Amino acid sequence: MQMSITDPRTTVAAKRDGHTLHPDEVEAFIEGYTAGEISDALAAAFLMACLLRGLDDEETLALTRALIASGDTLRFDGLGVPSVDKHSTGGVADGVTLVFAPLAASMGMAVAKLSGRGLGHTGGTLDKLESIPGLRTDLAPDQMRRQVAEVGCAVGAQSPRLVPADGALYALRDATATVPSIALIAASVMSKKLAVETDLIVLDVKAGSGAFMKTSVDAMTLARACLALARGWERAVRIAVTDMDQPLGDAVGNALDVKEAIEVLRNEHQGRLRELVVAFAAQAASVTLARDLEEATSDAGRALDDGSALECFREMIVAQGGDPRVTEDPAGVLPAAPVVVPIVADREGTVASMATEEIGLASGALGAGRVRKGDPIDPAVGIVVRCKIGDTLEMGEPIGEVHARDDDAAREAVRRVLAAIVLREGPVAAPPLVHAWLE
Amino acid sequence: MQMSITDPRTTVAAKRDGHTLHPDEVEAFIEGYTAGEISDALAAAFLMACLLRGLDDEETLALTRALIASGDTLRFDGLGVPSVDKHSTGGVADGVTLVFAPLAASMGMAVAKLSGRGLGHTGGTLDKLESIPGLRTDLAPDQMRRQVAEVGCAVGAQSPRLVPADGALYALRDATATVPSIALIAASVMSKKLAVETDLIVLDVKAGSGAFMKTSVDAMTLARACLALARGWERAVRIAVTDMDQPLGDAVGNALDVKEAIEVLRNEHQGRLRELVVAFAAQAASVTLARDLEEATSDAGRALDDGSALECFREMIVAQGGDPRVTEDPAGVLPAAPVVVPIVADREGTVASMATEEIGLASGALGAGRVRKGDPIDPAVGIVVRCKIGDTLEMGEPIGEVHARDDDAAREAVRRVLAAIVLREGPVAAPPLVHAWLE
Repeated sequence: MQMSITDPRTTVAAKRDGHTLHPDEVEAFIEGYTAGEISDALAAAFLMACLLRGLDDEETLALTRALIASGDTLRFDGLGVPSVDKHSTGGVADGVTLVFAPLAASMGMAVAKLSGRGLGHTGGTLDKLESIPGLRTDLAPDQMRRQVAEVGCAVGAQSPRLVPADGALYALRDATATVPSIALIAASVMSKKLAVETDLIVLDVKAGSGAFMKTSVDAMTLARACLALARGWERAVRIAVTDMDQPLGDAVGNALDVKEAIEVLRNEHQGRLRELVVAFAAQAASVTLARDLEEATSDAGRALDDGSALECFREMIVAQGGDPRVTEDPAGVLPAAPVVVPIVADREGTVASMATEEIGLASGALGAGRVRKGDPIDPAVGIVVRCKIGDTLEMGEPIGEVHARDDDAAREAVRRVLAAIVLREGPVAAPPLVHAWLE
Repeated sequence: MQMSITDPRTTVAAKRDGHTLHPDEVEAFIEGYTAGEISDALAAAFLMACLLRGLDDEETLALTRALIASGDTLRFDGLGVPSVDKHSTGGVADGVTLVFAPLAASMGMAVAKLSGRGLGHTGGTLDKLESIPGLRTDLAPDQMRRQVAEVGCAVGAQSPRLVPADGALYALRDATATVPSIALIAASVMSKKLAVETDLIVLDVKAGSGAFMKTSVDAMTLARACLALARGWERAVRIAVTDMDQPLGDAVGNALDVKEAIEVLRNEHQGRLRELVVAFAAQAASVTLARDLEEATSDAGRALDDGSALECFREMIVAQGGDPRVTEDPAGVLPAAPVVVPIVADREGTVASMATEEIGLASGALGAGRVRKGDPIDPAVGIVVRCKIGDTLEMGEPIGEVHARDDDAAREAVRRVLAAIVLREGPVAAPPLVHAWLE
């Protein structure tokens, strides 16, 4: 009946009743959960109380500290060049990392990118890269460090020993309807970044119909929470809140995304994906190389134009065991789907909005994503949508294609994509690409 | 990623987001939990969301309905006399049931009282009664019904098949800091009453320093929620919100409470315990026997004065296998503690307040209660405190005694009781015994 001082229920009761927790209390609770001393049930009640009562910056920092303390940390320093980590909260046609890593490397930074293999309508960065024949992402820490030092960039799978408590807590949140809490999301995202010591973290918080944060206001709140954590940890960070009200690139799949990334690296593809990658690379250079932002922007553009970023990408592929010919002939090397069906505008009008998540889900239904951990993904399938908000379409105009295993799946995907694109008469302004930069 | 319509997480998410749940949703969730299809973790998140977002009358009724549907129900009708159930939310020196059952029986009602064996600083009604040598409370439903028909009253242990989901849910709430929700408490209390079909439920909601509800406002809120459930179930109910800012009777133990109950039944003990029992019996008679309340109050007093209630108590004890001589010579029959130490006022002054729960805990520390399910209790030990708020004490005046296993335990209990009694100069008004009647 009487709770002792160390009864973890007192922590849950305090948060339930709207009190601010002492950082030690938060850390003790997470440690207890990680050690198996606190039940899933009590932890779930705690998460729901945190979600509904909120956590302030100090509580969130304590939570993040406890998550990081649950596992190993990695260091990427002493490389002779500044090291950069980059993370996106996830969107549709978000191939930024594929281009950013070699681009930043070509500009004199070292990009050490560890990715999780999460659930999603399309594969993550690891899955996309693995559509390159032979390419491995299971890099041991030493190998990763060596590759970053030699090539300038590496994209590897996050070790299960990195922030294991976050994995456990995320699975519990998913099972208990306690995912949508800004503080819990920020702690989850940032714990994985702060556990890897680099000179700069570049964070892309997506906002819009294709993102977890549906509004730029919510995304800004998350960005601020992440910023506070980086500051609390005394780590340099640049955070952008960027548009996900439409697919960022054109390709929504895995091999299709790699092909598009290579097109950007070959200077064959302009548009919003290139624009955002350049912005990120320029920000990173301005912080870590003390470059003027305008000059850094020119540098980044030049590295794409002159093929030096492409060369870094080729070296990274070679270092990770992949077939480097993909950079010359992506279509000849990457897996291809047997059925390719064009998507054709079924009316005329201006693109007013796009149900972006629905386009992602349509790609997932083709086999490009996974619903359960460990599900296989089909690297070849996916969707390419070439129109953007503000574009005026003629009826019958080709706006992309579906890459599928069979005709039925392709037809269903075409139907879903067309239904997801809302047309109207008259001009429509394109949404801004970057809502805000926080530092 | 996508939740199906029947994914129980959607129910939790809806409550989390402040929506009102459809009754079917609430029932499906509880059914799923009872069936083992919903994890403790998801149920804990649900409970925390219910606690923080609240449940309206319809949601609470649906929850109660689902709890009742999880087990057996019992009927006490067709007895030729109206049947009454009585329940208290729990307090200190709350021996009402021991007196109420035989008193109501002697007035022509049939009292069928099923008790749980909960945790508490002192034993529950079952534990108290079992301090009478030979008395059994494990009455089968048929036996209980027969005894009620023949003797007019029976106090038995609640079957584990009665509202089993409440037992499971209560254990989960206790483990996850989700106990203090009015709606969850009301559903828990009332499900056990509504599962037993009687003509009237008499409910005593305690308010004060010795009760779970510390203020009469909170107690009133709980009483209203219970009333709404009874109405929703179309059952007659009388609910009193009564004072628990001081022990109701004088005895805080088990055998000590039985002795005090017998003194009331023998018309040897006036005071607040007798007053409240008479009020409950009169209310019950006014509802079930259509008696005028004032006449019913006289009837109840007379049944205590003339020994007819005592005779019913004797018959109940005989029917349940106990030694009936306890009604003539309680001190000779009931177990006695080896050490009895007087409590003596250590200052002069008027009793201004009493830390009532602390007095209960002091009795529990002597061995009168249980901390864990299944713990044995010591029937002989306990505390008697004879002063009430408003009484003026002289220094050195005896105000009660501690019944203990040894001197050290007794001394500690005396110290705690004296520290729990706040004295001040000048007159202090006694708190009202009944804050309100709801019907």
